Amino acid sequence: MSSCYGQVFRVSTWGESHGVGVGVVIDGCPSLVGLTQEMIQHELDRRRPGQSEIVTPRSESDTAEILSGVLDGKTLGTPIAISIRNKDHRSSAYDEMARTYRPSHADFTYDVKYGIRAWAGGGRASARETIGRVAAGAVAKAVLQQAIPGIEITAWVDKIHKVQAQVSWDDAKADIIESNIVRTADTSVVEPMIAAIKEAREAGNSLGGIVKCVVRGCPAGLGDPVFDKLDATLAHAMMSIPATKAFAVGSGFEATNMTGLEHNDPFYMDGETVRTVTNHSGGIQGGISNGEDILMTIGFKPTATLMIDQQTVSSDGKDARLKGKGRHDACVLPRAVPIVEAMAWLCLCDHYLRQCGQRVF
Amino acid sequence: MSSCYGQVFRVSTWGESHGVGVGVVIDGCPSLVGLTQEMIQHELDRRRPGQSEIVTPRSESDTAEILSGVLDGKTLGTPIAISIRNKDHRSSAYDEMARTYRPSHADFTYDVKYGIRAWAGGGRASARETIGRVAAGAVAKAVLQQAIPGIEITAWVDKIHKVQAQVSWDDAKADIIESNIVRTADTSVVEPMIAAIKEAREAGNSLGGIVKCVVRGCPAGLGDPVFDKLDATLAHAMMSIPATKAFAVGSGFEATNMTGLEHNDPFYMDGETVRTVTNHSGGIQGGISNGEDILMTIGFKPTATLMIDQQTVSSDGKDARLKGKGRHDACVLPRAVPIVEAMAWLCLCDHYLRQCGQRVF
Amino acid sequence: MSSCYGQVFRVSTWGESHGVGVGVVIDGCPSLVGLTQEMIQHELDRRRPGQSEIVTPRSESDTAEILSGVLDGKTLGTPIAISIRNKDHRSSAYDEMARTYRPSHADFTYDVKYGIRAWAGGGRASARETIGRVAAGAVAKAVLQQAIPGIEITAWVDKIHKVQAQVSWDDAKADIIESNIVRTADTSVVEPMIAAIKEAREAGNSLGGIVKCVVRGCPAGLGDPVFDKLDATLAHAMMSIPATKAFAVGSGFEATNMTGLEHNDPFYMDGETVRTVTNHSGGIQGGISNGEDILMTIGFKPTATLMIDQQTVSSDGKDARLKGKGRHDACVLPRAVPIVEAMAWLCLCDHYLRQCGQRVF
Amino acid sequence: MSSCYGQVFRVSTWGESHGVGVGVVIDGCPSLVGLTQEMIQHELDRRRPGQSEIVTPRSESDTAEILSGVLDGKTLGTPIAISIRNKDHRSSAYDEMARTYRPSHADFTYDVKYGIRAWAGGGRASARETIGRVAAGAVAKAVLQQAIPGIEITAWVDKIHKVQAQVSWDDAKADIIESNIVRTADTSVVEPMIAAIKEAREAGNSLGGIVKCVVRGCPAGLGDPVFDKLDATLAHAMMSIPATKAFAVGSGFEATNMTGLEHNDPFYMDGETVRTVTNHSGGIQGGISNGEDILMTIGFKPTATLMIDQQTVSSDGKDARLKGKGRHDACVLPRAVPIVEAMAWLCLCDHYLRQCGQRVF
Repeated sequence: MSSCYGQVFRVSTWGESHGVGVGVVIDGCPSLVGLTQEMIQHELDRRRPGQSEIVTPRSESDTAEILSGVLDGKTLGTPIAISIRNKDHRSSAYDEMARTYRPSHADFTYDVKYGIRAWAGGGRASARETIGRVAAGAVAKAVLQQAIPGIEITAWVDKIHKVQAQVSWDDAKADIIESNIVRTADTSVVEPMIAAIKEAREAGNSLGGIVKCVVRGCPAGLGDPVFDKLDATLAHAMMSIPATKAFAVGSGFEATNMTGLEHNDPFYMDGETVRTVTNHSGGIQGGISNGEDILMTIGFKPTATLMIDQQTVSSDGKDARLKGKGRHDACVLPRAVPIVEAMAWLCLCDHYLRQCGQRVF
Repeated sequence: MSSCYGQVFRVSTWGESHGVGVGVVIDGCPSLVGLTQEMIQHELDRRRPGQSEIVTPRSESDTAEILSGVLDGKTLGTPIAISIRNKDHRSSAYDEMARTYRPSHADFTYDVKYGIRAWAGGGRASARETIGRVAAGAVAKAVLQQAIPGIEITAWVDKIHKVQAQVSWDDAKADIIESNIVRTADTSVVEPMIAAIKEAREAGNSLGGIVKCVVRGCPAGLGDPVFDKLDATLAHAMMSIPATKAFAVGSGFEATNMTGLEHNDPFYMDGETVRTVTNHSGGIQGGISNGEDILMTIGFKPTATLMIDQQTVSSDGKDARLKGKGRHDACVLPRAVPIVEAMAWLCLCDHYLRQCGQRVF
Repeated sequence: MSSCYGQVFRVSTWGESHGVGVGVVIDGCPSLVGLTQEMIQHELDRRRPGQSEIVTPRSESDTAEILSGVLDGKTLGTPIAISIRNKDHRSSAYDEMARTYRPSHADFTYDVKYGIRAWAGGGRASARETIGRVAAGAVAKAVLQQAIPGIEITAWVDKIHKVQAQVSWDDAKADIIESNIVRTADTSVVEPMIAAIKEAREAGNSLGGIVKCVVRGCPAGLGDPVFDKLDATLAHAMMSIPATKAFAVGSGFEATNMTGLEHNDPFYMDGETVRTVTNHSGGIQGGISNGEDILMTIGFKPTATLMIDQQTVSSDGKDARLKGKGRHDACVLPRAVPIVEAMAWLCLCDHYLRQCGQRVF
Repeated sequence: MSSCYGQVFRVSTWGESHGVGVGVVIDGCPSLVGLTQEMIQHELDRRRPGQSEIVTPRSESDTAEILSGVLDGKTLGTPIAISIRNKDHRSSAYDEMARTYRPSHADFTYDVKYGIRAWAGGGRASARETIGRVAAGAVAKAVLQQAIPGIEITAWVDKIHKVQAQVSWDDAKADIIESNIVRTADTSVVEPMIAAIKEAREAGNSLGGIVKCVVRGCPAGLGDPVFDKLDATLAHAMMSIPATKAFAVGSGFEATNMTGLEHNDPFYMDGETVRTVTNHSGGIQGGISNGEDILMTIGFKPTATLMIDQQTVSSDGKDARLKGKGRHDACVLPRAVPIVEAMAWLCLCDHYLRQCGQRVF
């Protein structure tokens, strides 16, 4: 169980879905960063269940308590511990999960790996685990925005099932995204996306989709070749989010349809700054940021929890049937947006602090 | 520069394209693993330049020398150092690279990050860097194949530019793949792929494509949620290979077009073994292997080096033109196959050894 | 601030003296370890302030709450979070510390390093930090005692200022040590040690001393040469405890007075077991445990907090005088005993789990 | 086998005594550090066998070859690989070691841990392993001396068996130390020390002693509490050197004989600089450097190799006798001096680079 992330900005998350709570400890955060409970709460509220009619109805306020590492609104340089208590445990609704493996969930694999699992609500494999990421991401954001004025990370739902947004990387704006409950950057698809989610929910079914994420204002020079290329570590970060199946940077798989001449990004001078005419590279060349926008595309499968009768097996090795009970989240994409952003902040913050010890002279 | 990979099976690679050589040190390899120079050389020969008419003509034998950690064909448990000397340095062919940034190469970003770069042949950003990965991957393969009888990793070129192989995950066979110089699993596309590469080379252009990789015989239980999910770390491993732009596990981006009911993999009992009817999960659920084949898809952009005049800038900040000189590798896909396999071995070996300390009781 | 310890059994502690609380998150603990709140509380109670007339009177119950990672008395393999709330904050007693550096405390160095510090009660540099270690150590103890029947770690106060216990490594017994408030293994020095502490306290002065620690029943084979030799990592662990100034394994500095012939430990066969006649090596040879008792000696300086007027400087760079206020702990040795044991458990547990991935064949 | 050291300045050493060679790879070295082969060779020559009449006669030139990471006398920021070939293998002299465990050597423990060992010359447990440390230490020294003008690390032999140097920390000078083959800072004990070593050698016996090490010019603020206190990591570094048995910082065990009032170091203002009147702290307070000289004392046992008949056991579990053959190093202290310095440079360099990412604002 590696619930640790980062080499310099080191995050350690904890918590089960139906345990006492969830949280995170951050070691290696620089001192003198402006940080308040509100900054963390703001991001948690974007991830919170029950925030709109299209997300899971679990009733949780998800209130963050900062336990250490901050004094009078400034980080101390000491570990920052943040805890969020669980409230709405409905363990009884999950009793069947103790004995039957939900298809495409982690029930079976946790049992094989650990020989034990906290079956209620998915335990550690529940999406509640991502609360620690979002809280830590808010701290990483505070660090980076203080260190690099103007840096911004914006994610949005670009596709839900067959409904595809039509928006360029440049035109995706945070205020539009946050103005609709689907968190898409194209207002014309808001209603179709909501309709698709509601239809799936009524059928007890679920939908996946695509989240896009752009980092604007990232300076050139971040990323550590060979193994810790910026795109490699962003891939790691994003693919660690539950339900992700694919990751692309810049041109992604579409690059394979282009020739080198079509794909190469010509350089030009923009005053004193080296820029590229196109951005197929997605802001990263040789694993290092080049100052252009960093462009990421993340594919999410439809959630595994269904309110439909399915074939499966029991934990004692017999064929079985299972029909989901309890709460049902037909589409996690809207709530995945702040999680994607959090992982991007965490990844970039770690690279930024690593670079401080790399480029000394 | 993080040229280190792995937490328990720790790999540290080194070397510039036109320096003395390249190599790797492996710390944390178990003792008593059968290992010979031939096992390493076999993999290096698959990666070697000049092995066929469609790859770069750089003349290198890439002969591995084991410097430590092995006695009488068995690993000692001590660090295994492997060194490969460079031979064919044609630095003069690269003089222009000292002063002009090649588009979509790492010249500019290395300069920004480090304030210096070994410009000849791309230095550390050269594909020669991957020799250390392949050598280390051969050691990881030896460990895993001794620990897990029957485990196999097979990669192949599934697409070059517009030429797409037609082969199922199950039908991709190593002997067919190694029998053709493109390393595709579908013999019917060998000639079209070769023709496409030759055409691009004659035009001074380049092509990308897709490599697929399947892990067969991997036991259930590998992978460390939360952050080090097996798919997340595989994504990290693959996206650290030069020229990669996208990664998918199992259904990948295609998952977004399916509903939960379509995508979920029903469980069934195959004797004593829990199996799944379908494998959209790609052998990984909740970040942990479930015993099914692990399915990966990796997208490579067309190589950046072209023999065509391109717009760029000089290292002293002036607009410039550049036409590639020196050797030209119009398509790296055939040689990427052993590199993809090596990264998969490295990733899985590390997870296997981590699991030894996780599941003690 | 590296509040992280361990490579496989990874501990991350947090908390300031006068903040909300202190605690720890443990990642990498094996699953299926029997673990209860009582096992943790038992060790915390041995470290607790106010437990006897010779330790600091701060009134804290130091009650541990397990927040995650344990289900029905068994570890889940997921992160174990443990939190202990602070209660007795008397910040006002420490006001002067905000402006004046206490001699031989960490006030000045924290200010230089971080540019900010939680001055109340010493903040992160307070001995309350060690609560997280002791809680984590209790978990490590549970792991190791389940994995290695018969392993025991026993520490005791061997010297306080000029009062020296007379007891051999073999004769130090846990029941005797715990039967007296000084935690010495030689009952004849209990009264002189108590008298010395009381005398120092009345003078507003303080005393240091020596803690010895023996690991009995440790199997041969633990410890990772080259850099992570068992003795090197034990030295690291012990010297990270506040107020330590010296560490010795086996013969320690006394080894320098012996010749090789006197110092070498001859081997002999004890049935099937390789044993040594003497144990100058202190149970470790070449950085690896040899199955003999592991013998450690740790030197603690007298605590820096005095109730005596001292020369110092203010945080704004002026010469100043300071007389300690607030609580006074004239000798930390009795409470250091469980901390030393905790660090030994943490160090050995990490080595044990590392060895699981090292000796596979 | 953890042959890795450091978190940011990451060193990975390799090599067996009678293998092809020994060496090191350094990842995380900043770019633009002035570095030449001569800087490395200079330190290796101080460690080299056969340099004087009182050290082991093994004939090795120990010539360092820089394989990567340096261009035109500047570091590239890429991994620096350094290799040193072995020359003088006299494996036949060690045949008996294959079957018989040398007392107080690592033969037995390596066999238990790994189930295999390179018995010739001690394999990885040979002192030749320290060559990699010294080479890496030379690089760390280059980094730190470029970053912190005036920083110096000086070690010397302070005691050999019963012969004790009389020199204060302040009076130990590098030129005097290097002017005598014992490497002591007190010229009056050079002859007695040499005589003691010669006498032991003639008897086939061996001697240990004490090395002291002072870091001058280290800025305040280095060291990472809680677990990676500067003194804790220095203890780790020094105790990882073969044959060490004890470590002390500042007052060391002597601190236990002092009261708090005697031990505390009063602060005073020296112009703008905060200084301490005394330095019992040894330059480190709360695990962080305070700008005073860092004072370390390291105890070495007498070397285990003797030319005297000793009781032992064979590797197949029978009582046996062993009389050392081959080369005999009656006292390693003179050659330990550059190794102690190298470990201090490595430890401080890592802390310096870590601090770059800690104190950003």
